[in-house]
Formats: sequence, structure tokens, C-alpha cells
Amino acid sequence: MTHSQRRDNLKSQIVATGLNAMLVTDLINVRYLSGFTGSNGALLVFADERDAVLATDGRYRTQAAQQAPGLEVAIERSCGRYLAGRAADDGVHKLGFESHVVTVDGLDALTGELEGRHTELVRASGTVEALREVKDAGELALLRLACEAADAALAELVARGGVRPGRTEREVGRELEGLMLDHGADALSFETIVAAGPNSAIPHHRPTDAVLEAGDFVKIDFGALVAGYHSDMTRTFVLGPAADWQLEIYQLVAEAQRAGREALRPGANLRDVDAAARQLIVDAGYGQQFSHGLGHGVGLEIHEAPGIGATSAGTLLAGSVVTVEPGVYLSGRGGVRIEDTLVVAAKATPETSTTSRPTGLTPELLTRFPKELAIL
Amino acid sequence: MTHSQRRDNLKSQIVATGLNAMLVTDLINVRYLSGFTGSNGALLVFADERDAVLATDGRYRTQAAQQAPGLEVAIERSCGRYLAGRAADDGVHKLGFESHVVTVDGLDALTGELEGRHTELVRASGTVEALREVKDAGELALLRLACEAADAALAELVARGGVRPGRTEREVGRELEGLMLDHGADALSFETIVAAGPNSAIPHHRPTDAVLEAGDFVKIDFGALVAGYHSDMTRTFVLGPAADWQLEIYQLVAEAQRAGREALRPGANLRDVDAAARQLIVDAGYGQQFSHGLGHGVGLEIHEAPGIGATSAGTLLAGSVVTVEPGVYLSGRGGVRIEDTLVVAAKATPETSTTSRPTGLTPELLTRFPKELAIL
Repeated sequence: MTHSQRRDNLKSQIVATGLNAMLVTDLINVRYLSGFTGSNGALLVFADERDAVLATDGRYRTQAAQQAPGLEVAIERSCGRYLAGRAADDGVHKLGFESHVVTVDGLDALTGELEGRHTELVRASGTVEALREVKDAGELALLRLACEAADAALAELVARGGVRPGRTEREVGRELEGLMLDHGADALSFETIVAAGPNSAIPHHRPTDAVLEAGDFVKIDFGALVAGYHSDMTRTFVLGPAADWQLEIYQLVAEAQRAGREALRPGANLRDVDAAARQLIVDAGYGQQFSHGLGHGVGLEIHEAPGIGATSAGTLLAGSVVTVEPGVYLSGRGGVRIEDTLVVAAKATPETSTTSRPTGLTPELLTRFPKELAIL
Repeated sequence: MTHSQRRDNLKSQIVATGLNAMLVTDLINVRYLSGFTGSNGALLVFADERDAVLATDGRYRTQAAQQAPGLEVAIERSCGRYLAGRAADDGVHKLGFESHVVTVDGLDALTGELEGRHTELVRASGTVEALREVKDAGELALLRLACEAADAALAELVARGGVRPGRTEREVGRELEGLMLDHGADALSFETIVAAGPNSAIPHHRPTDAVLEAGDFVKIDFGALVAGYHSDMTRTFVLGPAADWQLEIYQLVAEAQRAGREALRPGANLRDVDAAARQLIVDAGYGQQFSHGLGHGVGLEIHEAPGIGATSAGTLLAGSVVTVEPGVYLSGRGGVRIEDTLVVAAKATPETSTTSRPTGLTPELLTRFPKELAIL
């Protein structure tokens, strides 16, 4: 889908909500709608046939022209404020703004700009994020590439014996990061987590100089970035010999993760997906040790809609890309998390139901590194 | 300075503005005041002798206890909202909030939490950022380490001939990034800019597969992160032979950069600092080709207070850490930027005026890689 088509989809939303235009100030949303990746910018999208106006500052004059070739680019330091005034100049009566992104002070600035004008600011939170939840073919292609880079990096790391006693968490993390870049990542998706032994019980642990030891769990949560799209995967290994408690919680988390994946059907209630995995862990007596949600959307952001947790509202959309990542963390001993990134399948149609997929509803697994317990 | 001392400084500000407590929701500010580095958290700081309360979610239970050992930690998903309710429970009448950080929707949530309670939300923007502008000794030590890692990395890259025709921007950037990690960086401060030939005319260019060629400017803007503190440095090289126009604009930018550094005195008007460098470039006829501000503060964020630009208000504070980074960008040909990170000196006192520093006002240069034009 071209950026112009995405803006057309937004126009439909703008019209449907009775607005004349929308001021997009979230930079990821600006990127999604225009292709522009600078660190300062905003986009004014009209409900009618007029094309959008991109504002950015002088540092990005050349880049904006390259990345958003069809668009008018205004060079202004206060992008949102300028575009609000521009909307008023262009006769916009109802101007939507991203109330989940614009700060209280930022709204003051917009209001000040519009003082005495006939333009009303209207809250329009999450409009672009809702469009972004369902990925188009181009986005899926990039997400596949990101996940492939991560898969290949971890496979090479393990194959060359990179996860072994005597190395530090930091050394392992850094080697894995280098391998992701070797395998096509533009950059890292987020700060790599390598957590060994008791550190593996900390869900979000930063790599330290702690040395990997025999008998440790080693939890690795990492991702590759390709053209702005993230991958997200966690695998947990044991440095042999594995103790019975380790085998037990690994198997539990693996079963919960499979149950979560199998619950990924378009139309499923998000909290039911969470419950499908969580109930197994609760039943095993580790409910308190699974201290986070089951998953989240992945795309231009590493965490985006939908959130999949015990209190999430809403349903899974076909074509959305989400993680499934249950974990059990035993403080002071160690923890296991297993995480995949998957595409929620399109609803079965007459065409797809005749393919080899029995239901047409199996999610596409993007992170394909094996999940059987590897004792290294 | 301990985190507790920083919170005491904030208490003084809270008292001075007539508040009973302040809700800190900016994560960098939370880190500054508590040491907690998780991705979800908020801090409630009381005006009186009661110690602060840190809120975060279950993922960070262990980490919060480790990083903020003296503090009460509340485990709540909606941290800001919970702490607003807590403030009401604890008899806070006037609760400051960060109106430059809290979104319009976020304020709704806080207001909803406080409905029917006797707690008033009061705007308090930039209070912690103002404290952060002057660095304490521990912060300066970390900033020096970050700049040293960057210096050492660039020196090794150049010494081993890493910047040479035939390599791609991406290769050069990646090698430099690896060297920063080798020399003690925990991570990268920001996405490294390596911009060769015409790309060097793009102030913020992402490295591509473009190949470095003889006669190119190569502009490298990069930074190291050490314990949360950033460095920021830009150097521009020429791959020989250098053309006259290159020598001319390099010398111009170098002179402007020196003028900017020499203008860094405590108490100087920020716009005068900008003007000290900018006027030289304007006088040479390249004013339109210097399309950004002269510099910015550096600390826990790569861009923080103060901004040093043509329209900046306020004055430079002793002990602040700022960049000086003029540039001239000739579209389609190439550009030069030279950037240092420096500490604005403390005001001369009877003690310091007897030291070897003649004025006591010379800024401390943290990025020490040479600035003479290197033709590689």
C-alpha cells in the first residue's frame, strides 16, 4: 500500500468522524502516512481531495523531499502549531488532533495559534494507530525480513557455541547484535536482553558482566529492525545439566505459549487469548510468577496495538502482527520466557479454505527458531 | 549527588511553588530522581519530609527494588493514575504534574482519578529538567567517560584507516559503533550518522550503502552511552584531494565553532552564543546553509535543556553541558559540521581565580578528538 493510499484510508476515518482535517503529530504516525523519518515533523491531512502538508525543520529539507516526494513540505520549527494555523487558513472548521500524543502544554500552543480563528480542535486519539494495527503486504514483507534476520542471528550464535559457560551476558548480547546486522538488520529493535542464572528471573534485565555458568537458564529477548519494522523474539536455554525444576517450568511455559498461539484467531477476544495461556500457568500454581501481559502488537513500534492482557478490551484483527510471550519468573532462581511474533490469519474465505491450510486461520509464525528446550 | 539529594532539591522547588507534592511521569526524570530505569514508572515526591513513592508494573518489581533501594515501590500498571490517587489519600491539596509530558488524554485519566477528592492538579512543567540542566560531579564523571569512549573509538577508526574510499557509509558506521562498545560504551547514544559526498549536505543522514569516494567530505556524527549519559561529537574529514571550496567551508565552520566555544560563559545569553558562531557564517554568505541551532544540552537525554539557537531565551548556567555544532551544507555538493560537547565552567571564585586557568571561565572540552582538517 502506498503512503497515499494510507492517507486515503485516514481520510475515510476523518470523514466518518465529522472532521474536516486531522493534525498528525506522532512521529511514527507521520512516518506511516508519509514515509518521512525525521525527528521533528507533523502532517496535516484533509478530509477532502486536497493532499496532505508535511511540516519539518530546516535540518530535514532535503530528506523530506526525498522521502515524501509527492507532498508539499513546509519548513517550520514548530510543526504542529504551524499546521494548525495552516488548517485555519485553509478553512478547516473541525480539526482533529492526537489527544493521546499532544501534551497539555502542546494543546495550549495549538489553542493559542487558533485564538480568534474559526477552527475547533477535536480529540481524535488512536485513529492512525487503529489503521496501523492491520498490516499491509509491504509491511508484512518487512516484518518477515526483520524476523528472518533475528532467526538467522540466533541460529548462528548457537551454532558457533556463542552461548556457553564462561562468557558474560554482555559478550553474548553484543555478538548476537553484530550477527543481526550481518544478517540484514538495519539496527537493533530494542536493547537486547541476555539474562543468565538468577538474572533470568528479572523479566526485563539489562546485560551485565555476570558470567554464564553451568546450570543457568539463559534468557535472550532481542529483535532486529528492518526499514523501520521490528521483530521480537525470546528464547530461553539451559546450560547443562538441567535441573528438574528447570525442565518443569520450561515445559509449562512452552505449553502456555502454544495455547496462546493456538488462540490467535481473528475475532477472538484479546483477554481470552491471554487467558488461554495464563490459565495453564495459574493452574500449575505459578500465576503470581507470570507478572505481565501475554503479548502486544509489533510493527513500526516494538509495542503497539493491540495489547493482549488479562484486562484488554477488543478483539484480534485479521492481518495484525502480535507477540505471544508467557513467562514464569522465580525470584532468586531463574525464569523462562518464550516469545514469538506471528501474523493473525485473514478470515477463511472460499478461496483460502480450499488451500492446504485446514482452517485458513492458523497464524503465520514469523520467528521460526525452534522452541524445544535446548540444553547447551 | 545521591538520588535522595536530588529529590531534596526538587522538594525545595515544590515548596517554592506552593505545591504539596509533585507527580513525576517523565521516565528520564523518574530515573534522575530515583535511579529506576524501567520503561513504565512514575514518582510521587512530597514537599514535606515524607520520602517519595515509586510506582511501576510487575515486570520491574525486582529491578525497582535493586535500583531504588530506599524507596517504597508500588506495583501498579497505571502508575501516574495510581500515584495521583495515593497523593489524595495522603492529604495532598496541590499536586504538581508535568504538563509538558502528560498528554491531553493522560490528564483526563488523572482528573478522573481525583474526581470528588480534595486534590487539585497544578501545572509544573520543566521543573525537574531545570534541575537536570546543571550537572553534578557524578554526572560529569559519566559524561567524561562517554566522551572518552567516543574519542577513543574515532581515533582507532582513523588510525586503522577505517575511513577510506571504497567502503560504504554503513560499514564505516558499524565499525565505529563496535569500537565505541570496545572502548567502554554501554550502547550507542543515537543512530550514527556517516554521510559521504553529497550526502554530507544532509544534516541528519542515515548511513546507506553509498560508497566513499576520493574527494568526498565524510561527516560523522556519533555518540556513546555510559550509564545513561550521552556524548555527542561530529567530525568531518576529506578524502583527498581536497578542493578549494572544501577547504573554504571547512575553515569557515571551524572558525565559527571556535567562536561558539569561546562564547560559552556562565551567564551568557543563549542567543548571543548562537550569534557568536552564526554571524561568521552569515558574513561569509552561507547563513541560509546553516539551517539549525548552534547546540543543545546533553545529559540523560541526547537533546535537553538548554537549546542554543537564534531564538533561545535564557542564559547559560555554570556546570551545564552543551554542544557547539555549527554546519554549512551545500545541497548536492557536500557539507561540514564540527561539534563538541563541553562543560560550561563554574563562575570564577577567589579560589579558582588563583589556579592556572587565567579566567576560570574556559569551558571544559569533553570531546577531544582533533578538529584540524584531516585529509585522509
